[in-house]
Amino acid sequence: MIVGGGFGGLQCALGLRREPVDVTLVDRQNYHLFTPLLYQVASSLLNPSEIAAPLRKVLRRAPNARFRQGEVVDVDLPGRRVVLADGESLAYDDLVLATGTTTNYFGNDDVARHSLGLKTLGEALELRNHVLDCLERATVVDDDAERQTLLTFCVVGGGPTGVEYAGALAELVRLVLPHEYPEIAFGAVRIVLLEGGDRLLPTFAPSLSAYAARELARLGVDVQLGELVSCATDTAVTTRSGTSMPTASVVWTAGVRPADLVGAIPVERSRAGRVEVDDRLRVQGAAGAFAIGDVAAARDRRGDVLAMQSPQAMQEGRYVARAIAAGLAGREVAPFRYREKGSLATIGRSAAVGQIGPLRLRGFLGWVVWLVVHLYYLIGFENRFRVLLRWGWYYLRYDRPIRSIIRAADRSRRGGGPDRE
Amino acid sequence: MIVGGGFGGLQCALGLRREPVDVTLVDRQNYHLFTPLLYQVASSLLNPSEIAAPLRKVLRRAPNARFRQGEVVDVDLPGRRVVLADGESLAYDDLVLATGTTTNYFGNDDVARHSLGLKTLGEALELRNHVLDCLERATVVDDDAERQTLLTFCVVGGGPTGVEYAGALAELVRLVLPHEYPEIAFGAVRIVLLEGGDRLLPTFAPSLSAYAARELARLGVDVQLGELVSCATDTAVTTRSGTSMPTASVVWTAGVRPADLVGAIPVERSRAGRVEVDDRLRVQGAAGAFAIGDVAAARDRRGDVLAMQSPQAMQEGRYVARAIAAGLAGREVAPFRYREKGSLATIGRSAAVGQIGPLRLRGFLGWVVWLVVHLYYLIGFENRFRVLLRWGWYYLRYDRPIRSIIRAADRSRRGGGPDRE
Repeated sequence: MIVGGGFGGLQCALGLRREPVDVTLVDRQNYHLFTPLLYQVASSLLNPSEIAAPLRKVLRRAPNARFRQGEVVDVDLPGRRVVLADGESLAYDDLVLATGTTTNYFGNDDVARHSLGLKTLGEALELRNHVLDCLERATVVDDDAERQTLLTFCVVGGGPTGVEYAGALAELVRLVLPHEYPEIAFGAVRIVLLEGGDRLLPTFAPSLSAYAARELARLGVDVQLGELVSCATDTAVTTRSGTSMPTASVVWTAGVRPADLVGAIPVERSRAGRVEVDDRLRVQGAAGAFAIGDVAAARDRRGDVLAMQSPQAMQEGRYVARAIAAGLAGREVAPFRYREKGSLATIGRSAAVGQIGPLRLRGFLGWVVWLVVHLYYLIGFENRFRVLLRWGWYYLRYDRPIRSIIRAADRSRRGGGPDRE
Repeated sequence: MIVGGGFGGLQCALGLRREPVDVTLVDRQNYHLFTPLLYQVASSLLNPSEIAAPLRKVLRRAPNARFRQGEVVDVDLPGRRVVLADGESLAYDDLVLATGTTTNYFGNDDVARHSLGLKTLGEALELRNHVLDCLERATVVDDDAERQTLLTFCVVGGGPTGVEYAGALAELVRLVLPHEYPEIAFGAVRIVLLEGGDRLLPTFAPSLSAYAARELARLGVDVQLGELVSCATDTAVTTRSGTSMPTASVVWTAGVRPADLVGAIPVERSRAGRVEVDDRLRVQGAAGAFAIGDVAAARDRRGDVLAMQSPQAMQEGRYVARAIAAGLAGREVAPFRYREKGSLATIGRSAAVGQIGPLRLRGFLGWVVWLVVHLYYLIGFENRFRVLLRWGWYYLRYDRPIRSIIRAADRSRRGGGPDRE
């Protein structure tokens, strides 16, 4: 029983495809999401389907795996059963917790209510729609202050998601606004990136942080360090230092925490709330239970908790598949060892940073490496091919093609009147 | 002032691009929708962005045109002003009404509430999500009757939209179900097409109607003629003949009517509610007002009202652009003459029907013509290229790639809790 179809859960399911086991993969969504490119959906460059692979389609490769759409709300570890939101309870022999993380607002309900997330595909679409809405509304308001509120976009969090989205948003504005919004002066749009620490991309080398800040500044992003958001409303954001700025768009990328399920079950957790696991990724004190990916506090050789990144999750997923197979054969696997894969983040057209072992990459070369790596790991040949085409097109044409404001119609809100969506 | 960015309104705006006029195009949505391919979004084959072109992007070609997103709720014809839903009122010299149609439930609120439409992009996405949801739910229900309700899909209306969607849905089920839903017996899925008249595609030649019915039957669609829906609930549909069938999915394609705006303004209307226009597409008794496309009751040489199709709308849009330009130059154009373009409808892979003048097409040849015509008219080179690639891929691979259940997150429903969408 694998709970979660992200990078870790999916690799685990695929790793078990030739073993004599029955695999059930449970996920709330019916798709695997390639989260590293989520910000490109939010910034009008990719279609949702290009980074979302239907789990049933991916699992065609694993004939012994079944997919079950549903939300796991409780786990009976001694009884070896999981309970789904629809009330059903499913028995398991081995459990792999791979539920990932959710946005962390650090208890600030104000911010939770008045900000846009960038963690799920639904949020990315809502963010795309919201930004395009703001531009449309800015073309028709008479009031200068209101227009400035609509045209100020505040991204909170200087990690990879915040940096990548701020850069992509700046490019979207730069590419589209001058040609298509004659009503808006180009200089009127303001993109602010707020980071609480003293540099962007804190997990990267300081030289790369400085490069990222310079590149963002070149794109017109106003990077403000040492600023923690204390309060947000529909029309403004205020930081702890007391500065306040008018904005209708607060994009929150400043933190994640393990998904709720983990808080509901009696397992030992790290300070960040991640499930403590031993060096074989087993949940302490719960026979037959493993935890992998962002939700698990796996450690490297030095005892440091691994970062919440996809390479870690994928290696852990494959490792647990091997461990389960070995267990069936009466063997035991060697402890899990994370093989360092490095980190990459892109800032904009032809600009990215990367560190792979002792190597520091930036600029065009970093961007090419970023591109190749992301294409390589994108699930499914067709997606890879289509994303490549789209990027090529975008690179040649300086375009962001997907700018229609689209929402699925909500049947529950429809009466006998005219259709609106 | 052009109200509506569909086929007619857009062609009118583009037709005026070299004339000494200022054009404002108003639409509720920020995109032009290629409605003939909407059913392909609903059946998991195309992405929304592939049939939706951002209006501002299309209007780059018309430097004298401005886009205004908004809903026109009233027109003051004598005062030459339109009133938007946000309260703003805009003056015009010439008005082009191109507001199209909306779904017609013929006053049956039950059906309106319990059926899915296929007229807007939001509805197409909701229909796609709904069908995929039904399949997922069918894999987990224990009750046979409930499973049959979830696996029965009832399409109402045997016009092109109903026929094309029923065929595409049958192909989706046939291509995907056997490989990815081991829990569901293939024969358990039932697709029913209900048509009130005595044949499908009543605007086509009877031989083509018969061919379409045969092809649909070959795909496993249960075509029932002479059946009018009288009542629908969440779990069943009942016809006037008294037959009732369990279904969680009623797809309503059985009628359209002019958009609400037309009912709100004092213009003469045809029996179907379309705006009466003279032979130069002018609204009777309202100086400077034209009506085009589905909303207008333009007539052919024999005095018959033209069908609600895109070629008619496009020709009318271009004609009105010429008429306005001629008016400025002090000339008058000759009366509008519709040049017959024929009709096409596709049933499935390698099967379509078409009639172009005296020509009757069907089967593979009809399908190729359908394909070329639709690609040719699809707005934007990039979309055309991408749709061609997708169709090629689908043809070679027998796949329907876009099967993720995706909804934009609804911020208004979000509190400080975990993110759900």
